Amino acid sequence: MTVFLVGAGPGDPDLLTVRAAKLLASADVVIYDRLVGPDILELIVDKALRIDVGKEPGGPQKQQEINELLIEYGRVHETVVRLKGGDPFVFGRGGEEAIELATAGIECELVPGITSAIAVPAVAGVPVTHRGMSTSFTVVTGHRMANEVDVNWHALGKTNGTIVILMGVSRRAEIAEQLLASGRPKSEPVAIIHRGTQEAQTVLATTLGSLGVAQVQPPSVIVIGPVAALDLFGTFGR
Amino acid sequence: MTVFLVGAGPGDPDLLTVRAAKLLASADVVIYDRLVGPDILELIVDKALRIDVGKEPGGPQKQQEINELLIEYGRVHETVVRLKGGDPFVFGRGGEEAIELATAGIECELVPGITSAIAVPAVAGVPVTHRGMSTSFTVVTGHRMANEVDVNWHALGKTNGTIVILMGVSRRAEIAEQLLASGRPKSEPVAIIHRGTQEAQTVLATTLGSLGVAQVQPPSVIVIGPVAALDLFGTFGR
Repeated sequence: MTVFLVGAGPGDPDLLTVRAAKLLASADVVIYDRLVGPDILELIVDKALRIDVGKEPGGPQKQQEINELLIEYGRVHETVVRLKGGDPFVFGRGGEEAIELATAGIECELVPGITSAIAVPAVAGVPVTHRGMSTSFTVVTGHRMANEVDVNWHALGKTNGTIVILMGVSRRAEIAEQLLASGRPKSEPVAIIHRGTQEAQTVLATTLGSLGVAQVQPPSVIVIGPVAALDLFGTFGR
Repeated sequence: MTVFLVGAGPGDPDLLTVRAAKLLASADVVIYDRLVGPDILELIVDKALRIDVGKEPGGPQKQQEINELLIEYGRVHETVVRLKGGDPFVFGRGGEEAIELATAGIECELVPGITSAIAVPAVAGVPVTHRGMSTSFTVVTGHRMANEVDVNWHALGKTNGTIVILMGVSRRAEIAEQLLASGRPKSEPVAIIHRGTQEAQTVLATTLGSLGVAQVQPPSVIVIGPVAALDLFGTFGR
């Protein structure tokens, strides 16, 4: 009886790990999120019970409900897969689920996934680190929630490293303003990748000075720093 | 004729992506690093030419030589795999290779890998983000090189986020001192994961005040922040 917290990666089934693919092919139960795409759900073995716990964006939190489901099924079934978009521990709330399972005495194992924070920029030709440009990168959520640690955008601006913002589209003007106030130049390159790693991917190249008025839509990953001008694979503006 | 820049992940063949496994099973040439383990090299198809370009730690740079090999083989063979430990764009110098290939007019495609920076802490029970503890994480190299952007440890300390340090064992005392000077408390939890995701994994739990004198060896991943005390899977001290 094990609950596997499994990262599904950015959406392409080929970017699942081998371990994740094996688990989907043998699971008794798969409990999955809205962020897991249909091509990946097709890999689930026929015998498995599938449970969709995807919440609508902005909808009510149902983490408590999910925790209860994990414990309920984890007590009864041999192999329960808790499938999450990206990586379970990168804004995936996997840690909370692991704590609940441990408290209930249920075995839990982590299977890391490819995180969109690195892979979406990478596939679009933006390396988060690059010799002579960046020796660090910070991944941060633009989404602000109750009871959460506030991001210190001012300190973040001063780090000299690449900044990768997930879920930051709606607050982009405010974030740009704070990074400019920290000393980042208006000319600092910014790449905004919409529907990254998917066929419908588009990349908008702009600058920190123009980020606030850039025409972008969620879901997008925003990359800030010199690397955001690299365009290694000629995808920008497409 | 395509050169695939492929991330091999932290070492476990099951943590390869499906795409990476398929490429190893069909490649004409595989050019690989020291950081890629023997279990993964076993997956390379028999017909493939294997080229080991792993440099010894501290040995002479041979990036120029590698670039030349990539171009030489990329001009002749249908499928050339450039296999790197972790992810090609997380301190992997994949960006430099992509630029060289583009300049030579050779098609290049990126296949992201699971990065040790997230997966090593995760498998050891340390989530890089956790509700109420951390809304950002920074991945940084402790290794200082010529012609590189200096890390602003003072700003980094002030970010309120989790800090993940790769290749930081030898400079840990100096790094701890700078983070303490930035205002992080002596009691700040630190987890040091040696040989992460491998059978020989050990996890040392300490604090920022004691990091400088902690008995640790490379290769280790150092995680700093409240999440470093979580021990989700009961691995600490083992």
